This record gives sequence, structure tokens and C-alpha cells, in this order.
Amino acid sequence: MELLKERIRKEGIVLPGNVLRVDSFLNHQIDVELVSRLSDEWYERFKDEGITKILTIESSGIALASIAALRFNVPVVYAKKSRSATIGSDFYSTKVVSYTHGQVYEVLISKKYVNSNDKILLIDDFLANGSALKVLINLAEMGGAKVVGAGIAIEKCYLKGGKDIRALGYRVESLAKIESMSVDGGVVFAE
Amino acid sequence: MELLKERIRKEGIVLPGNVLRVDSFLNHQIDVELVSRLSDEWYERFKDEGITKILTIESSGIALASIAALRFNVPVVYAKKSRSATIGSDFYSTKVVSYTHGQVYEVLISKKYVNSNDKILLIDDFLANGSALKVLINLAEMGGAKVVGAGIAIEKCYLKGGKDIRALGYRVESLAKIESMSVDGGVVFAE
Repeated sequence: MELLKERIRKEGIVLPGNVLRVDSFLNHQIDVELVSRLSDEWYERFKDEGITKILTIESSGIALASIAALRFNVPVVYAKKSRSATIGSDFYSTKVVSYTHGQVYEVLISKKYVNSNDKILLIDDFLANGSALKVLINLAEMGGAKVVGAGIAIEKCYLKGGKDIRALGYRVESLAKIESMSVDGGVVFAE
Repeated sequence: MELLKERIRKEGIVLPGNVLRVDSFLNHQIDVELVSRLSDEWYERFKDEGITKILTIESSGIALASIAALRFNVPVVYAKKSRSATIGSDFYSTKVVSYTHGQVYEVLISKKYVNSNDKILLIDDFLANGSALKVLINLAEMGGAKVVGAGIAIEKCYLKGGKDIRALGYRVESLAKIESMSVDGGVVFAE
């Protein structure tokens, strides 16, 4: 999607350690108009799939997933990385390692909000090694839901996450695919 | 706002420890259509204030703030509760105690995203003791921004947060005001 690529070219900053900083428009300050356009594109690609729910993981997926949920006219659920007083005791849980934080989290979702009638679209800002998506697939399937696919803003195609998840049979639609990037050379897009 | 009160009456669960669980529509699963209506109401109340930015804190404020940002046609910024590789080193920071988690967090916002041209509307799901709002006011004012006010979904009026923040001169617009609540008696709304 050219609009997103342009924005990455203009404002994205490649940092050492294979980090792409897009915090001016995607995951700290968020250009919600841009995210609406991303949502239109995900909708275009998944509109015939009978999506009943959008699922993401806190925190950086929430803004994108919420705006996508408006477009699909379905509720959004975000998996939580901590047990709060409000989640109750009846949840599915699994573990994940954060790509940017390096910590291990327990990730939780209330059993009430995924069930066998659900056709779920996963939404996230980045796809790198795929650990967040795998956790979400795991949680959704624990509840008997069908995972229709994933809508991703930025995929780092030189990492194995996207390949792994597609190999498992899930459809992944990434709107900007990065073939390589470096502090000196910037971002090179696939295709 | 009757629509929100009705939903709380229907689906809200009062738990011991003064917790109101609204995770079926507001902060785990989110009814984005309802949040759109809340945003319309905040827009109605703040539309003449020249808002340039919506500010919230991760995670439970993000969905509401993002949808409100669409309504106001401005960017949203969410303050972060941890230092990730993507936030960089040039940020304002302060401390906050979570009402539902009981932990102390460092809260951060990149200096690039609050400045003296900004007229900021704070958005959050709950107002209880006011610690999150006070932190956001603090961060915004560190950057020289003007805080126009706060749009809150649910205020626990029997706690001092709202009173404190109004006494400091900030406008707070809460769409459902709870006068009291108990496990046995349920929720009693103010007015």
C-alpha cells in the first residue's frame, strides 16, 4: 500500500538492533486518518470472510484494531499482558516474548469473548518473528474460534514470522512489506 | 449519557474492592459503535475548544481515545508505561500508581508529540482517584501544551479524583457518573 510506504519513507527511522521507529504516526502518536485508510484496505481484502470479531494484543495493536473494528462493524477484543482486577478468573492464557521489550509476558483473554461462532481477524502494527500473532491464534483457537487471517501494517519479510504463519495455513495481509533495512541504507520494500 | 448508563446497568458487574467490571463493552471487548457515540458526545461538549490532539495512557484508554481522535479529526498520543526500543531517549516522564493493578509505573511521552501549540483533550475509560489524569496533565504541561479538559466514560464520583481535578481548574466531562456502588446494591448513578 503506497500511502503507508510513503509515510514510512518520510518518517520512519531505522535504529540499531533492527528496530523501525514509526512512533510519529503508528504506535505512540497515531495518525488516525491514515489508520482509517489501512482499515479500508484490510476491509477490502477480508470483507467476504464473515468476520465477527477483531482480535489484537495490548498495547500497540489497540488503536489500529479499534479503528478496523469500526470499519468491519464488529467488536474488538484485546488480549491483556497482565492480570488486573477486572479480567476475572475465567480466561485462556499463554506466554509470549516481546520483540521490542525482550520480556516474557503472560497473555490473557477472557473465555467469554472468543467462542466457536467467531471468525476472527487479527490486527497488529508489526509482524516480525510472529510471536504475537502465534499467541493470538493460540488464544482464539483455545476458544474454538476460527482465525480467518491477519491484517498487518508493517511486515519485516526478512524475519521468519510471516513465512511461518502462512505455512500454517493462515492468510496474512501486510500493507507494507520490508525486504531489508539498515541504519545507513534505510528501508527497502519488497516487490 | 443514558446510552452508557443503560449499558452499565445491563452488563456492568460490581466486584469486591470497589471494582466495576465493564470488560464486555469498554476495556477488554470493546463495542466500537458505543464508543463512537461516546465520542460524538465528547465532541459536542468540546468542539469549540480548538482541540489539536487527544492524549491518553496505555492500555485501556487507547481504544476510546483513538475513536475520539477520528471524531475530532486530530492525532492521538498515548503515554507509555514502559521504555521500549522505539520510544528513544528524548521524553518527559513521571510516576503513577495503577488503581486496578496496584503497581507503580513510570509513564513516558516523547517530547516530539506535546508542544506549546497543542490544545489537548485527555480521554480515559475511568476516573477514580485521578492519578492517571494527573499524570497526563503533568506530561502535557511539561511540554508546554494547554490541557483543555478531560472526556471520561465512567466517573466514580464518590472518590476524590474528579473533585481534585476540577478544583485545579480543569474541565472534566464524564458520561456516566456513579454516586455509589456495591456488590449487593449494584450501581447508583448521580443526578
